This record gives sequence, C-alpha cells and structure tokens, in this order.
Amino acid sequence: MTGAIEADSPRGCTGCGTRPAVSHGAAARAEGADLRRVRIHPDHWYPLAWSRELKPGRTLAVSFAGEPIVLVRPKDGRVFALEDRCAHRQVKLSAGVVKGCTVQCGYHGWAYDASGKCTDVPYLGKGKLPNGVRAYPCREASGMILVFPGDPELAARTPLPGLGASADPAYKTRRLGRAVDCHYSFMHENLMDMNHQFLHRRQMGQIRPRFLGQRATDDMVEARYSFARTGGKQPLGEAAIFGKRRGEQEALAETDVMTIRTEYPYQTLTIRTNGAKPVMELWIVYVPLDAEQRRHRTFGLLSIQRPPVPLLLDAAWPVLVLFTERIFKEDRDIVEMEQAAHDAQGADWNQEVFPVIRALRHLLRTRGLAPAA
Amino acid sequence: MTGAIEADSPRGCTGCGTRPAVSHGAAARAEGADLRRVRIHPDHWYPLAWSRELKPGRTLAVSFAGEPIVLVRPKDGRVFALEDRCAHRQVKLSAGVVKGCTVQCGYHGWAYDASGKCTDVPYLGKGKLPNGVRAYPCREASGMILVFPGDPELAARTPLPGLGASADPAYKTRRLGRAVDCHYSFMHENLMDMNHQFLHRRQMGQIRPRFLGQRATDDMVEARYSFARTGGKQPLGEAAIFGKRRGEQEALAETDVMTIRTEYPYQTLTIRTNGAKPVMELWIVYVPLDAEQRRHRTFGLLSIQRPPVPLLLDAAWPVLVLFTERIFKEDRDIVEMEQAAHDAQGADWNQEVFPVIRALRHLLRTRGLAPAA
Amino acid sequence: MTGAIEADSPRGCTGCGTRPAVSHGAAARAEGADLRRVRIHPDHWYPLAWSRELKPGRTLAVSFAGEPIVLVRPKDGRVFALEDRCAHRQVKLSAGVVKGCTVQCGYHGWAYDASGKCTDVPYLGKGKLPNGVRAYPCREASGMILVFPGDPELAARTPLPGLGASADPAYKTRRLGRAVDCHYSFMHENLMDMNHQFLHRRQMGQIRPRFLGQRATDDMVEARYSFARTGGKQPLGEAAIFGKRRGEQEALAETDVMTIRTEYPYQTLTIRTNGAKPVMELWIVYVPLDAEQRRHRTFGLLSIQRPPVPLLLDAAWPVLVLFTERIFKEDRDIVEMEQAAHDAQGADWNQEVFPVIRALRHLLRTRGLAPAA
Repeated sequence: MTGAIEADSPRGCTGCGTRPAVSHGAAARAEGADLRRVRIHPDHWYPLAWSRELKPGRTLAVSFAGEPIVLVRPKDGRVFALEDRCAHRQVKLSAGVVKGCTVQCGYHGWAYDASGKCTDVPYLGKGKLPNGVRAYPCREASGMILVFPGDPELAARTPLPGLGASADPAYKTRRLGRAVDCHYSFMHENLMDMNHQFLHRRQMGQIRPRFLGQRATDDMVEARYSFARTGGKQPLGEAAIFGKRRGEQEALAETDVMTIRTEYPYQTLTIRTNGAKPVMELWIVYVPLDAEQRRHRTFGLLSIQRPPVPLLLDAAWPVLVLFTERIFKEDRDIVEMEQAAHDAQGADWNQEVFPVIRALRHLLRTRGLAPAA
Repeated sequence: MTGAIEADSPRGCTGCGTRPAVSHGAAARAEGADLRRVRIHPDHWYPLAWSRELKPGRTLAVSFAGEPIVLVRPKDGRVFALEDRCAHRQVKLSAGVVKGCTVQCGYHGWAYDASGKCTDVPYLGKGKLPNGVRAYPCREASGMILVFPGDPELAARTPLPGLGASADPAYKTRRLGRAVDCHYSFMHENLMDMNHQFLHRRQMGQIRPRFLGQRATDDMVEARYSFARTGGKQPLGEAAIFGKRRGEQEALAETDVMTIRTEYPYQTLTIRTNGAKPVMELWIVYVPLDAEQRRHRTFGLLSIQRPPVPLLLDAAWPVLVLFTERIFKEDRDIVEMEQAAHDAQGADWNQEVFPVIRALRHLLRTRGLAPAA
Repeated sequence: MTGAIEADSPRGCTGCGTRPAVSHGAAARAEGADLRRVRIHPDHWYPLAWSRELKPGRTLAVSFAGEPIVLVRPKDGRVFALEDRCAHRQVKLSAGVVKGCTVQCGYHGWAYDASGKCTDVPYLGKGKLPNGVRAYPCREASGMILVFPGDPELAARTPLPGLGASADPAYKTRRLGRAVDCHYSFMHENLMDMNHQFLHRRQMGQIRPRFLGQRATDDMVEARYSFARTGGKQPLGEAAIFGKRRGEQEALAETDVMTIRTEYPYQTLTIRTNGAKPVMELWIVYVPLDAEQRRHRTFGLLSIQRPPVPLLLDAAWPVLVLFTERIFKEDRDIVEMEQAAHDAQGADWNQEVFPVIRALRHLLRTRGLAPAA
C-alpha cells in the first residue's frame, strides 16, 4: 500500500469504525449500525427483471427487499408493476391472467389495472368494488425493467441511473445477473478492494494492484488502481477485454487505470488504457430480494469497446463469457462465506485496514436506512 | 350475486369482520382472533388414517394437531390409539413391535396395552411397573380409523359423523386423501365459494354459478347454487358424475342444485338433479397435522349414484379419477398460496365480500379454540 | 434386574431426579438442569478429525460445539489448530492456502502462523499488521488429531486420554466415526444400559443381560454385565469377536463379563472371558459439533485381541465390520429418535428406572457446563 493512501485518508467517524472523507448530516441516523443490517434506500430506481424475462400477455413474480411485486406486460401497452397479491384472498396476481390492460386473479377472477385499482369482481356489482392494491412506478431501459420501490412522489423527479456504455453502439454489452446469498454491501466492498486479486490467482495469474488514490463525496466513493503482472500468463479472457494479447510478464500496462466507483446505490468499474473512452465499463447494482436483505440479485451490464475489426470481439466473446463466469463464481463463493460468518457471529466483526473501503462502508451505512427494529 | 344474498345477510359481529346469522354465546372467546390461527375443536371424531393403511400386527404413526399418535392393530383384536411415545425414553412406539394385544417399545421392550397401561418392563419386577401413556378413544368406520382427541369423557356420547352415501350400495365411493400445506379453514372457504370456478376454467370450461341462498345455525352454514355453462364443452369427468353427456352450451341444467354445507367440523357437497337422492355426494374433513395447524390431511368420501347400467359408471371411473385429481391439484395449489401469503403477512388480510363466506368464517372461528398464546 | 442393584443404589440427589453414589461439590451448578442441554466440558482433549483426513500441505474445517476450527498440516511440520476465520473479513481460513508453516486466507492473502499471529498482509507494511486469531493446543495420537478447546493453560497439565488397546500390537483396531444427530448424553446412556439388547434382537438373537453391579466415583460410573442367550443363533459378527463359534443356546458364556465405563468425557466397553487382557475393548468419545450440542461426531477405537492364528481375525474382519455397522445404525436411529422427541417435547421427560443410568446421568450433568442462558 502506498503512502498516497495515507494522504487520502479521511477524518474520523466513531460510528463506522472508519475515517471517512465525507461530511455527516441526517445520515447520522445510521451511525453505529451493523452495516450488514443496513437496508438499501428505496428512493432509487432498481432493476427487478431483464426485459426478455417478461413476454407480452404474461406476468412475472419478482421482489424488492421482501416486498412481492408482479410485473405485468399487456399484449399492447407498457409494463406495469403492482403488489403481488389479490386484495381478496392474498393469492399472487402473478399466478393470474393478463386480460387487456388488466391482470386478473386466478382464483375468483378479480381484475386490477396499472394503477392498482380493482376494476372487476365477476360476481359483484360495479358499484361495490373493493379497494385495490399498491402500484409501483415502473420503467423499461437498456433491457431492464426498473421499479421505484420508495416514495412514489419522488419517482418523477428521480432520474433513471446512467447505464453507461451499454447504449453506445461502439460497445458490445454482456448482461450479468445472478442471485447471491449475501447482503449487497459485501458486493460493493468486494469490487472496490482490488487487493482481492489473490482470490482470482487461478484465473488471472499473479497480478499486483497498485493503489493510485481515492475520491469521495456525500454520494460517491471512488478508487483508482494500476496493475503489474508479477507472475503467470495473461489469460485469454483478459486479452479479450484489451483487444490484444500482451507478452508474458508484461500484461496490463502500468499506464492502464482501473476506476471503481460506488455512486449510491450503483457501482461502476471502468478501464482506460489512454484517451477519453474506456476500453471496458461495468455498470452493476445489487438488488435485495428478502426482507432481511441477506440475499440479492445482481444486475450488471459489462460493455467492451468494439475493436477496429469487430469480428475479433465476437470471436473472443465465448472466452470472455467463460472468464467472467469463473471470476464471478469465485466472488460469489467468497461473499457468501462472509455472509455465513456474519450469520454465525451475529455481528460485523470486520477489521478493515484499507481506507478506501472504510470510506465506502461509511457511504453505504449513511445512505441506507437504519436496520429494522 | 343476487338480491337474495342481501336478504339472507346476517346480523353484525364485530370480531369477525363479518355479519353472521348465528347467535353468539360461549364461543365469543374466539372473537377477534385471526381465523388462520384458530385451532380446530378436539371434541369430535377425526379420521387419522385409512383402514387399509394399517395391516394386522402392525403399527402406524399418525398425528392430530401436533400430537403424535400411534395406531395399533393386533393380529386378533380391535385397533387402538396411544400417545406415540414410550414413557421411558420417549422414542416412538410406532417404531416398536405388536405383541399380542400390546405394543412393545423397540428400544428396551417396555409394553403397553390398549388402555395405555405399562404391562411389562422385561428387566423389572411386575410390582414396580412405571406409569403408562395416554390412550385415545378409537373407532373404525367406512374404511377410516377415527380417533377422539379431545375430552375422553365426551367420546362415548359423541356420535360418529354421518358418513353420507358411502354406506349406501346405490353409490360407488372414491376415497380422496392428501396432505395440504394450509390451515383447514382455507379448505372450507374454498369449497363453499363456488365463484372460484374461475380457478378451474381449464378443467370445467366456463361455468357461471348462480347463488340461490344460504342457511345458518349455530353448528352449520349452507350455500345453494345452480350453474349455467357460458362457454366451452362439458368435460368428460363432469359427464361421469351426471351419468350422461349433455349438449354443448347446455351442461349442468339450471334446475340442478348444488348444496355445500359445513356442519362443524365436517363438510359436505351434494348435487341433486331432481327427486330425493343426490346424484353425487362428497363428505370431507380436514385434519390438522402440526401444532400450528398450518398443515392438514384431507379425508374425503366422494359417492356417485350408480346409473341403471352400472358398468357405465365403472367404465367412466378412470375419467372421474383423473378429473377430480386435476381439480384437487388446482385447489391445493391455490390454498397453499393463501397460506404462504398469510405466513408472509403475519395476519389474515382477507377482504371478504360474499356474505355466506363471512358466515362460514364466523362459524369456524366461534366453534374452534382460540389461538395458542 | 437383580437385588444387587438395589444394594448398589446411590444416595439421594434432588436436582437429578436420581440418587447418585457420588459426592457433590462445585458441580452443583448444574443441579436441576435439563441434561440434554448440559454442555460438554471443554477442558479435555477431544479428537476433531482422523489423521488420515488431513494431507500434508492441506487444511481441514472441523468444529467443536459450534466453534469453527481449521486444522492445518504444513508440508513439513506439526499439525496446528486455529479459529477458522480470517481476522479481516471472517472468511474461513480452511478455504485458504498452506504456505510454509502458515495458512493464508484465500481472499486477500492475509497469513497466520501456528500461534494465530498475523504474519503478513501482502499490501500492508510489516509494522502495521493487525491482530491475529485464536490458536488451540493440538496433538496427534493413535490416528486422531486432538484439540484442547478449553482453557489453554490447562492443556499442558491435562494428559491425553488413555486410548486403550489401540496401541497394543496384540490387538487389531477398527476406527468408527459418524455424525449423529443427538446430544452426546444419549450415547453414553445407550451404551451403558445393556437392557437395550432388545433393540438389536435382529442382529444379536435373543440375549438376556444379567446386571452384576455398578461402581461410581466423582469422575466415573461403571456397570458390569454377564449375558445368557435365550433364543436365536450366535451371529457371525459376535463369533468374530470371541474368536470361536459357540453352540446354539450357549453363546456368550455366563462367566464372560462386559464392563462399560464412562470416565468423563470418554467411554469404554471391555469384554473379558478370563485372565487379565480383554478380548475386546472399545474406546469412544462423542464430540459436539454445533453450539446447541444437538449433533456430534463419534470417534471410536474398537480393538479385538488377535487370536493365536492371526489370519482368522483378518478373515473374519469383513463380517465384524458389517456386524458393527448394523448395530451402530440401529443405535443411531434410536438415539436420533430420542433427540427428536426432546426437541418436540421441549424438555427431558426421561423416566429412568435403572439406578446405574441414573448415576450416569448425574455424572454427565455435574461434570458438564450448565446450559447456555
């Protein structure tokens, strides 16, 4: 670790057991809370499904932090999102039927429109219709169905997240998604602490990260690294990303810079070899599935800049897929082991020595909601 | 829904969120209780096994609402029922050995007779025999082994339930039994609310129930319906029950009447096309298995009147079996979904609009035992 | 049961519901506790693995009463035992890498030596190394890796247990080990109460144990039996132990004596036909795996005296293995049924009539630790 870290090191914060660079404020409500129990803040747009998972005329059962949600795609019309329960007997609307622009419960046929209003009970007069169910603001972008699970009044003035290079035709994008049995915070820390290259020693060869510095604001923590290969060969998957095969012992040039940023609640990783445009960009978010938020689904967009001869990237794609799958599996195994340890220990025993991770932990703690009582 | 319902509608009852036709009394102890936590009343005869499940000289482990019970059938002699534990080290007597008219624990050989008395400890003097275990009143009728789990003093003066047409040679009877993961109350409501034909739209075609009225007493709630086919063909299974194939769009004649009655704790469904004898009768009871009563076993006797040419019914039987299995599977899936919703919501969010179901809920609540503390 | 038992019967002890022959003292802290919740005392040597399970240069994840422990065998050097967690992010060191005489965490590469000290964080200066993890005293003997999970100061002056005949070349030893889902106390009682021969009636034929008497001290309870065959043939497995096939109805001679002793926390069973040396000796201990101690792993050494023609024993060995496996399976099934009953009943309903078992229960209760609050 370089002296540069020390220079960057943040001021003190008792609650976090960390010394963040950010100023405090209302967020102090979460001071001292166990980070692994801090709930993700619902006032953001979260992807709950890939667009391709929901066919026209069908429903899809998803969830956000324990709230069951049904996504409905009418044959003609925009996707909408409701509480996944019928107001009558609480069975899942996702087990029902799409009828026009409504979803009809499969049990007694009660129907609901996109606003959640009950529009029909087949055996009851229209004047007597009961109350409906909650509707969630819902959008579709870049192949994802996003929902705003928080205060609906805030949805209109909260922009969708920038989805990075995935909209730029100069890039080819791979969608990564998997359920992982851990709190979302483990994922942020995993990606930002590049010293964990040791975990990937079998996939990546021996790479030594060099920490270049960190930045932080109230909403964001960022770390920059360069890399030196200290042993082993450059893997094919890495070559696929960089568009060329480098010589042994050379690998990632020391001038290449990797930037990892958590801009709450999203995370990005970009690699720049020179110039303005990154050669690779990952946009990723970890969406809690259960009420305890001990399990999440990962939605990631991994975009690779197309090389001058585009077919080269297509040819290398299967290698890249295999490479990222293997890396991801190692990461998943280790973060699930962290969660299991937290479950067994009943508290966060983390003993962090890396200042940028301490700043990240502070960000996640102060931007989230305090643990449920 | 017809105006007749309104005329039938019961007087107010705060605790139920329903307006029952029945008068109150001691049962008020359960007022306000979550129906899905109301325990079934033990002072009735409940089938715990089919007779054919217990061979001579063998034991069978069953349970009633979390109480483990062993049924014992001596090679010569009547079935008896005991607590399924040895008084010594609590291992299950059902894992033991039938010896004469006793059951012997498989561990150290302690023996118990039909009254639960310990009659032998192989390595102990007769004068020192320890206390035994509880015995339950036990009867066998219509292919079922019935046990009285409540106050044994009441057993002698509590008649066995009428088991309907199953004893009448003019009927052929099918025995239906399956474990279902839900509180018994969901089953009563499912069967009595015929508006749930929507659930069976794939099996039954489109049938519109017409509610004819309801009756209720302290012990009983009853609903009557006729049916009109509004689309689709009459299924073969339905034809098997009615003994003839009707024309399209005709189906169940509007003069046919279906009566569903809960006579606590049993339920019956009868179909009459004319005359005194029903063409079909179902007798059914839902026996809780676990202490929370979130799981039960269904014991049903489905009796079909034999047609003038009896072979016709035998020939149609496999179709009837398949038909009832499919209907039952749809019902089981939906009531298990209701239970799952109750588990997740932690309370009964039911929003009932159908008065006969509200009366039924009141009956089940007031005739059962208050939830365990 | 003979009058001899009565003569042996111990003085009263309120807390145990038993009348032990032993004097009380500090152990009285456990008086009245539910035996099935009494924690085994950690100030003894416990085997946590067989030596053959841990290859050079590898780690092995084990546990003692809910404490995760990693056993590490360097390529050169003695086995050592640490808490199975990295001090940094709590992932299991057993998922890491053995490097020289250290174990290195697989995530960020932190390294620990046999004393638990953190000796390297690859990206941190040596002067800043964080605290390490707990080390456990660890020994290897008779094919087992033993750990002292209690007060480390006591380890040096606590001798390893005598491992019986397993070190004597006059015996051939079989290692028995299996996870069993029950509290260790059920195992002690199972082995000592030979009236449970009824359980093994299919394997052993009909054998009637004759209780010869008991002895007890503060640390030990012992029972002595002889046996008479009352029916069935002597099984081959039994013949393998006694080195000869006896006639029907003869079997175990009444002069043969079986002694079962619990010398806390270990248990032994020896059979002597005459003379000084036993023909068979079993040394066994039941090591709790989980914090509730509802599950344990059995480590047993079953030693058979080699007959004058040694090949006879080798030839009979497969029969002996099968025989002991079958016996063990019956015992495991029944003790797991006892534990399941305890779980369901929520307390120890044991109604013991055999004084030596009551003395044993008292020993286990007073030598263990009081249940966790």
